[in-house]
Amino acid sequence: MSTRTVERIRIRYGETDMMGHAYYGNYLLYFEQARAAWLRARGVSYLEMEEAGFKLPVVEVWAKYRGEVKYDDVIAVTIWAEEMRRAAVHFKYEIVNESTGKLVTEGYTWQVCVDSSMKVVSIPQFFRDLASEP
Amino acid sequence: MSTRTVERIRIRYGETDMMGHAYYGNYLLYFEQARAAWLRARGVSYLEMEEAGFKLPVVEVWAKYRGEVKYDDVIAVTIWAEEMRRAAVHFKYEIVNESTGKLVTEGYTWQVCVDSSMKVVSIPQFFRDLASEP
Amino acid sequence: MSTRTVERIRIRYGETDMMGHAYYGNYLLYFEQARAAWLRARGVSYLEMEEAGFKLPVVEVWAKYRGEVKYDDVIAVTIWAEEMRRAAVHFKYEIVNESTGKLVTEGYTWQVCVDSSMKVVSIPQFFRDLASEP
Amino acid sequence: MSTRTVERIRIRYGETDMMGHAYYGNYLLYFEQARAAWLRARGVSYLEMEEAGFKLPVVEVWAKYRGEVKYDDVIAVTIWAEEMRRAAVHFKYEIVNESTGKLVTEGYTWQVCVDSSMKVVSIPQFFRDLASEP
Repeated sequence: MSTRTVERIRIRYGETDMMGHAYYGNYLLYFEQARAAWLRARGVSYLEMEEAGFKLPVVEVWAKYRGEVKYDDVIAVTIWAEEMRRAAVHFKYEIVNESTGKLVTEGYTWQVCVDSSMKVVSIPQFFRDLASEP
Repeated sequence: MSTRTVERIRIRYGETDMMGHAYYGNYLLYFEQARAAWLRARGVSYLEMEEAGFKLPVVEVWAKYRGEVKYDDVIAVTIWAEEMRRAAVHFKYEIVNESTGKLVTEGYTWQVCVDSSMKVVSIPQFFRDLASEP
Repeated sequence: MSTRTVERIRIRYGETDMMGHAYYGNYLLYFEQARAAWLRARGVSYLEMEEAGFKLPVVEVWAKYRGEVKYDDVIAVTIWAEEMRRAAVHFKYEIVNESTGKLVTEGYTWQVCVDSSMKVVSIPQFFRDLASEP
Repeated sequence: MSTRTVERIRIRYGETDMMGHAYYGNYLLYFEQARAAWLRARGVSYLEMEEAGFKLPVVEVWAKYRGEVKYDDVIAVTIWAEEMRRAAVHFKYEIVNESTGKLVTEGYTWQVCVDSSMKVVSIPQFFRDLASEP
């Protein structure tokens, strides 16, 4: 299990819905932004990974919505790599609404590592090292 | 468990990402569209439910992505109500890419029933009846 | 000026915002969907155009919002090619909200024709013919 | 004409499309985020304005796309209030891609001031003052 990275995100008006909350599908954008931040905090750019021939498409996602997030709220998305397999990586997420201090969302994703032709390949060693660093 | 409803959706360019596929977060829009279609097929409009004071926010979502969906592909989203509790309803989804005939995504959502002040309330009887109809 | 094509679109919950209307940015998705429909009505798929090496990125957009569009409303997007230049095409749009019968949005886009390396090229003759057909 | 505010935004993967660029509709989210930043830089929250009964829906938008913006690029959106009428405000935008230093997008929006029942009303004095401050 890796250490944690926190990414702060302010909710846009266009990300809310007529119920007045951030739309449930938009949390997957927040998860994605947190994954990029997790990599960047370790000196790696996801774009460079793709350019080097490794993509990490999401193959599974789960989210539990426990509380409200509204327009202009700032959320803190905490992310960590929970598990690493030969060709797959498992991230977990916790979102706290900074306006209320409450844990509002939990989630996870699984990504598989594929090459530029979308064939499943082993996760490169440098990425594996990122997740095991203290 | 209710009978099944199928909603066909064509993928927009703006719903793809630079990997060339429908972005994983957009499937939650497809699930939502299928829920509205499930209600409409039973003579109910979700908008009228909200106007009558009952909302059904999603409190949990899960999706497994097994295959690719690209721009201009037409997907068939099959939806059914799997389970109904006092204040919660559980939908399941299967998405087939009509271009390839393959099952590309499975998923589920849980919704809770709330009133206009976002307090959890029992699911109204007319909605409960919808799910138990053959 | 080409003949007109009409594309009907139902507004998703996730396309609304906390004001209760379709978010202003989402109309650009509706314009895009109408452009694909305009091509399809003339026997051409935009995807096939891209696969043949011609892309049509939007270089300019304008929209005027005159009325409200809400969740579950069905809009009718009328589109026509207003003008064709050597390497650019100009589409116009009118959106009527079928729930109210009112003209709610007008807009236009300019697209330029580029090849797969994003270099500006002449619009292929088959596309030019589409716009001049009665 | 007001002074300028600059909002920096990093492009998400889900905001790109299969052409590999930020989708043209998503720039309207970037404009919106810049408007909120412009207000915040002057000590005002758009949310508080809405809660005080004044909304500023966009009634017109124009954008010209001159260059590419890709995933993970950071854009600097410069915004200023160009003109203020009794019930309408006109913002202008310039977007520079920090990865290339190039001006990639120009745009404008018109907003009208409405009360909570969507009736057009005069822009409140405090807002008018914001735009005329040096």
